[in-house]
Amino acid sequence: MSQQTYKALIYVTLRPSVLDPEGTAVASGLQQQGYTEVEEVRMGKYIELTLTTETEESARKRVNQMCHQLLANPVIENYRFELKPLTTTVGG
Amino acid sequence: MSQQTYKALIYVTLRPSVLDPEGTAVASGLQQQGYTEVEEVRMGKYIELTLTTETEESARKRVNQMCHQLLANPVIENYRFELKPLTTTVGG
Repeated sequence: MSQQTYKALIYVTLRPSVLDPEGTAVASGLQQQGYTEVEEVRMGKYIELTLTTETEESARKRVNQMCHQLLANPVIENYRFELKPLTTTVGG
Repeated sequence: MSQQTYKALIYVTLRPSVLDPEGTAVASGLQQQGYTEVEEVRMGKYIELTLTTETEESARKRVNQMCHQLLANPVIENYRFELKPLTTTVGG
């Protein structure tokens, strides 16, 4: 079976109930620089991960496992991701 | 003129030509844990910023300024963002 390369775009965010001191510091810094219209800032991670699998289902399952085990801390963080097939030899 | 609250979803990524030691370390950690299908990992920041302005154009302009001046380092990072109006009193 042929292999397909995917790029996973992963967004890791703090759960809404978890305090975000870094975001609070950034918001306060922006306000002090004159950006008084800023109300709240929440900091998260954005991860681009390239992987090669046989099916999209398999890619989805593996990325889910990686997020749950290593990329996010499920106690305090949520994650979501999108998968994009990378075109390799498919031309047009 | 009435004010509108927006949530800006900001993605900050390293420029492709810039080395990403953190991403390399994460990729290597994943591979050692058995995720041998992983080819590359690039780490970035994801920022959710809430602000209130009069127009969407004004919100877009201000978020651009914040990214350029404070949230991203234009020498080594790229950024892009989406604006979402937060519904306040608009019901249905």
